[in-house]
Amino acid sequence: MSRNLSSFKGVLVPALTPFHPDLSVNRQAFLDHCRWLLGQGVAGLAVFGTTSEANSLSVEERTELLEFMVDSGIPAERLMPGTGTCALPDTVRLTRHAVTLGCAGVLMLPPFYYKGVSDEGLYAAYAEVVQQVGSGGLRLYLYHIPPIAQVPISLALIGRLINAFPDTVVGIKDSSGDWNNTRDLLREFPGFAVFSGSENFLLATLRGGGAGCITATGNVNPAGICKVFENRESTDADDLQARATRIRDVFQAFPLIPGLKEQMSRFTEDPDWRIVRPPLIGMAEGSAEMLHERLGQVGFEM
Amino acid sequence: MSRNLSSFKGVLVPALTPFHPDLSVNRQAFLDHCRWLLGQGVAGLAVFGTTSEANSLSVEERTELLEFMVDSGIPAERLMPGTGTCALPDTVRLTRHAVTLGCAGVLMLPPFYYKGVSDEGLYAAYAEVVQQVGSGGLRLYLYHIPPIAQVPISLALIGRLINAFPDTVVGIKDSSGDWNNTRDLLREFPGFAVFSGSENFLLATLRGGGAGCITATGNVNPAGICKVFENRESTDADDLQARATRIRDVFQAFPLIPGLKEQMSRFTEDPDWRIVRPPLIGMAEGSAEMLHERLGQVGFEM
Repeated sequence: MSRNLSSFKGVLVPALTPFHPDLSVNRQAFLDHCRWLLGQGVAGLAVFGTTSEANSLSVEERTELLEFMVDSGIPAERLMPGTGTCALPDTVRLTRHAVTLGCAGVLMLPPFYYKGVSDEGLYAAYAEVVQQVGSGGLRLYLYHIPPIAQVPISLALIGRLINAFPDTVVGIKDSSGDWNNTRDLLREFPGFAVFSGSENFLLATLRGGGAGCITATGNVNPAGICKVFENRESTDADDLQARATRIRDVFQAFPLIPGLKEQMSRFTEDPDWRIVRPPLIGMAEGSAEMLHERLGQVGFEM
Repeated sequence: MSRNLSSFKGVLVPALTPFHPDLSVNRQAFLDHCRWLLGQGVAGLAVFGTTSEANSLSVEERTELLEFMVDSGIPAERLMPGTGTCALPDTVRLTRHAVTLGCAGVLMLPPFYYKGVSDEGLYAAYAEVVQQVGSGGLRLYLYHIPPIAQVPISLALIGRLINAFPDTVVGIKDSSGDWNNTRDLLREFPGFAVFSGSENFLLATLRGGGAGCITATGNVNPAGICKVFENRESTDADDLQARATRIRDVFQAFPLIPGLKEQMSRFTEDPDWRIVRPPLIGMAEGSAEMLHERLGQVGFEM
């Protein structure tokens, strides 16, 4: 049994990264967005996630932006930056930097360039990072997202990592989209902080002993999703979950990141919020209209 | 029809990257290996490829190593470094650096984190790099390796890039492992420099008007593969191809990069040559024995 060493519980948001027209990061808009999310009641910010287009940013852009956030007063204890890259030295550098700034955790992709790699190799990759960072302050959350990374993190590997680094490897984000996998995680590793990668599984995850969710749609519906968490033991819980799920399902029917940025652009009245970095592309006007229409149909408003 | 602007023709090798036991790059062993390869007659060095574990290196490690190579006398006109990463600023930086050093070309992966991206998005990614690098000296070879990158480069995208940047987008490495795709490239884009990703298709590629191959196994069998190229119009051509193919097939029955490093370790009598960076793992002793036995059976000797 894992000891529960996670300081996060509830709803975390992989904050979207806004860009200027020249594709550079719009730091001020990012800070404003993160402050707004915390004001809406989210438990933490999983900045530099998949939704954040973090793997489209350089290491320098990530370290500078994180420092800017902390210097601007975003509490480091609310931050769980993504730090996993293809390259060991980059992962070590980002992770060490996050720990030095006092971040309460990091969310770590496996190295994702090579496919079909062994558990032995992935174990070596995580172990090497933990050892090279060499800090008792590191709280590592594994990031399982096989649809995108195409490099899954197996139950056997998780068990081995928890056994080897019980004070460090404290949780996981399960973005498999497969409830059976989340259920297995909850059963196999009690005390391990399991976060679903979608709010659609939030109540089920909590009822199974999980910690919460880390969800892209939290960027636009933070209060609605937080309500599910806050009322998890009330009679309203299932209705609140159903409402959050309806909204998620609308966004999920469109390209997720461009759709969320489209929504942010409408909310902030800032057209630049629509900008994504290649290889992603912004939402076509027709799709954007359809998105807003369907969101209207489920009564969604930011 | 593309104009043939490629200065490369024949056999290129994605040079293996040797590491020290602490996993840092062994620059001297890398230089020695590259010099040996050129001495064996290869047309060029596609350093920082998949076989080179380049995506397991940081941007700084790559730029420093390339400078060390050129400073040490490796002719830049023989170099085609890999420069494609997930992140636009990294790809721009590596590409600009290679052009500044005078490299005769770069081999560019598409951004490979997001999957199922559109041709429109991939076009934007390549176009942005070309525009940001902004150099008439850039010769860009596309790197199509769907089994690993999981982001294919379609014929339609290639056509669009050639049309938009006829002086810059001059060739492709086809590591699909699918001869039908290589054949289609040769038919659709005469004058475009098509390199097969395996010497097994070398003669067929040349006979179809292609430029050659860029092949992992060139690290250990450079002379044997070069012989196929040199004798491509002689009556020996098919026999030489069959012999090179037999050797390739042995290596391909094992994990390729660890197997090639195992072979280099035996050849150089340097056990450190076996070292790979996680998530790859070195070859188990039993597999190594089996590899050497099978190589003996096909009469392979370095």
